[in-house]
Amino acid sequence: MEKIRPRTLSGFMELLPARQVQMERFMQVLRETYALYGFTPLDTPIIEAAEVLLAKGGGETEKQIYRFEKGDSDLALRFDLTVPLAKYVAMNYGTLSFPFRRFQIGKVYRGERAQRGRFREFYQADIDVIGDGALDVVNEAEIPAVIYRTFTALGLKKFVIHVNNRKILNGFYAMQGLTEKAGDVMRTVDKLEKIGPEKVREILVDDFAVAPAQADAVLAFIGIRGSNARVLEALEQYRGQNELFDKGLEELHTVTRYLGAFGVPEDHFSVDLTIARGLDYYTGTVYETILPDHPEIGSICSGGRYDNLAEYYTDRQLPGVGISIGVSRLFFILEEQGMLSDEGVTAPADVLVIPMTDRLDEAAAAATALRKAGVRTQLYAEKKKFKAKIGYADKLGIPYVIFLGEDEIAAGMVTCKDMAAGAQQTLPLDALIPLLKTGLAQKNAGTVICEK
Amino acid sequence: MEKIRPRTLSGFMELLPARQVQMERFMQVLRETYALYGFTPLDTPIIEAAEVLLAKGGGETEKQIYRFEKGDSDLALRFDLTVPLAKYVAMNYGTLSFPFRRFQIGKVYRGERAQRGRFREFYQADIDVIGDGALDVVNEAEIPAVIYRTFTALGLKKFVIHVNNRKILNGFYAMQGLTEKAGDVMRTVDKLEKIGPEKVREILVDDFAVAPAQADAVLAFIGIRGSNARVLEALEQYRGQNELFDKGLEELHTVTRYLGAFGVPEDHFSVDLTIARGLDYYTGTVYETILPDHPEIGSICSGGRYDNLAEYYTDRQLPGVGISIGVSRLFFILEEQGMLSDEGVTAPADVLVIPMTDRLDEAAAAATALRKAGVRTQLYAEKKKFKAKIGYADKLGIPYVIFLGEDEIAAGMVTCKDMAAGAQQTLPLDALIPLLKTGLAQKNAGTVICEK
Repeated sequence: MEKIRPRTLSGFMELLPARQVQMERFMQVLRETYALYGFTPLDTPIIEAAEVLLAKGGGETEKQIYRFEKGDSDLALRFDLTVPLAKYVAMNYGTLSFPFRRFQIGKVYRGERAQRGRFREFYQADIDVIGDGALDVVNEAEIPAVIYRTFTALGLKKFVIHVNNRKILNGFYAMQGLTEKAGDVMRTVDKLEKIGPEKVREILVDDFAVAPAQADAVLAFIGIRGSNARVLEALEQYRGQNELFDKGLEELHTVTRYLGAFGVPEDHFSVDLTIARGLDYYTGTVYETILPDHPEIGSICSGGRYDNLAEYYTDRQLPGVGISIGVSRLFFILEEQGMLSDEGVTAPADVLVIPMTDRLDEAAAAATALRKAGVRTQLYAEKKKFKAKIGYADKLGIPYVIFLGEDEIAAGMVTCKDMAAGAQQTLPLDALIPLLKTGLAQKNAGTVICEK
Repeated sequence: MEKIRPRTLSGFMELLPARQVQMERFMQVLRETYALYGFTPLDTPIIEAAEVLLAKGGGETEKQIYRFEKGDSDLALRFDLTVPLAKYVAMNYGTLSFPFRRFQIGKVYRGERAQRGRFREFYQADIDVIGDGALDVVNEAEIPAVIYRTFTALGLKKFVIHVNNRKILNGFYAMQGLTEKAGDVMRTVDKLEKIGPEKVREILVDDFAVAPAQADAVLAFIGIRGSNARVLEALEQYRGQNELFDKGLEELHTVTRYLGAFGVPEDHFSVDLTIARGLDYYTGTVYETILPDHPEIGSICSGGRYDNLAEYYTDRQLPGVGISIGVSRLFFILEEQGMLSDEGVTAPADVLVIPMTDRLDEAAAAATALRKAGVRTQLYAEKKKFKAKIGYADKLGIPYVIFLGEDEIAAGMVTCKDMAAGAQQTLPLDALIPLLKTGLAQKNAGTVICEK
């Protein structure tokens, strides 16, 4: 028979078993942390009517989308989790309670040009709080706490949540009479780190006809650095000139004020006036999360406050604040940087029961008892040489092997080998189980991420 | 602005939040149980090259498949989890250890005609054990244990795992010289319950030219009923006439022999000669799981032994045994039958912290402490009337509400209301936390499924 070459499409992540176990742990931390903050899990279809998904239309997204017909239906695969959320909230408005807090971890699809570390199918992990007509700024203050706890629970230590406020930016540009040029100016300013202030000034003046004095004002504003208190202090000089700016400054004060109460250490949080995010969507606090040792990675968790979640579907104003983690990309980077911890059991089982007799009744009963006690157990049933059986446990990294021979069966005991320590002991299964549980708890005590 | 009507495609399941929480619990039980039996989690792409997915080709499946082009690529959405597994194992053959035990819970796609309880996007939850060249029959004996434990952990009590062996069927039909007609005969016999033995006999003789004596033999064989011991006993009369039959009978003996050791009670297991499953795939033990009070539902968990997992991709023989649960359909049926337990917290949070002062520092700190202790907590930050705040907790079913007024703050206490009991107490947060944990453990002690 002619064979088809088995292959996985490029840009589609498919992990080997031990890596997948790490990925599952990663996702479990996200699920548990998001749940701790009172977000409810949601699951929406991957396929939606193209008209619904593309309600906003235009832009880079539409080119990348997977869109196809089935029967008479014009369908598309979701390209983010925000549009499906907007649909869901607009659809179920009458049933939901607001503020509506949901998390969703799911695959999204973008037919980008495949390149290393860029995926066409990838997991996003989003949280959003949606208000009905209004949403208090305290919700914006709470978001850094979720980010902090999530990455801390994953085992990351060195990360900084950079925060800005779009009202401050828009207010400042309005003060300068640069509202219409704000987009161009911000895109230019975004290159500051790369090309330096001189070049930024040149582009502003030459390409966008910004007056030299204004360009200097922009550079002075964007150059405000230092501790959070210092940046807030420096922003005071602009107060009283623009209502929007003043409102944004108040919001930024509120966000920073509650950080401590929400458990975010000062050194993990940075007021950063260079953060802008999506120009036409966010309207208040915006977030980016940076690894200071790996600035080249860019933000690993971003989001912000928006005023109209579902304007394409409903007249109701549904303001919200949310963040998103690009899970697949982050996981790929962590792997590449060697930052995935190799502690923790990644084998399919904690115990391999190896029968040393032809009849398997006692071995099956032992496996059953172990499982009843919550120990992940495999019974090795293949007729292989002893060396092959123990080699199987070794190759998979199964931490404990139990042997059951005639002697053990007669004595009502089992022999257990700790594969890492090499130690072996014979004892009743009941006595072994608590020892296994202690040993496993130790082996699995670490976090998903380890920093070098 | 012209609005797009927000909608979800028909045949696509999208649950409201409280239901989704039940679904998450359902899936968590599957994940945990599968893991207990030494299966490793796998995640493969939803999109594959159409050539790879359709390697087997033909049949009903190909018509139902979602297939489309993107750029130069001919793509398709997976319609089950078995074909991706075959691809994965063939692709990674050199890296994997065999027996390879994996579980996968994921969405699959079939563009069926939409009808009530039939989904175009639905979750399957599969386990498979794959051998390299050979796979011991004991693996087939262990599968009923996984099924038993899974449904028991979900809270189902009345279910029976029906088991047959394809070698027994094929051997029996060979004895009768009916090998070539076996497909037609089995499809006819499958209607036994519906149309009765007289009618089956008539169809066999009239439509398929089965000799009357053979038709009687088929009906006698298929009519073997009773306890497992009795059915096995009755099968002895056919022994010695066909090698395949004898091998199948031995396998069936092995499977039933180890049931007890694997922890499956006799009354949850039934040797059932009417079970056939997919005619061209399974080669040994086959399984169906039936709810005796709801025979109309059909099998809720099926599978069996096969000899060639990946024949379209590789010459290597990869025998296996596996089962699949159609999660979305089962969940839908359980909901419809009122069998989803309404015990257990389905709210996004266990505690709603309601600040009674303008400043929120203490309320935020209380929420932070609760979360640190592992209690799912929401801080209610909206400026609403007290009645609206408490109504929010009530509507969502949040079990506990904590009030923080000036008095509590001054005294270093919190006031906590148990929403179900109506009782209210004022105490230090540290003293409250263990009480909350005990209360929540009680509320969440139940299972996902409850039988009426």
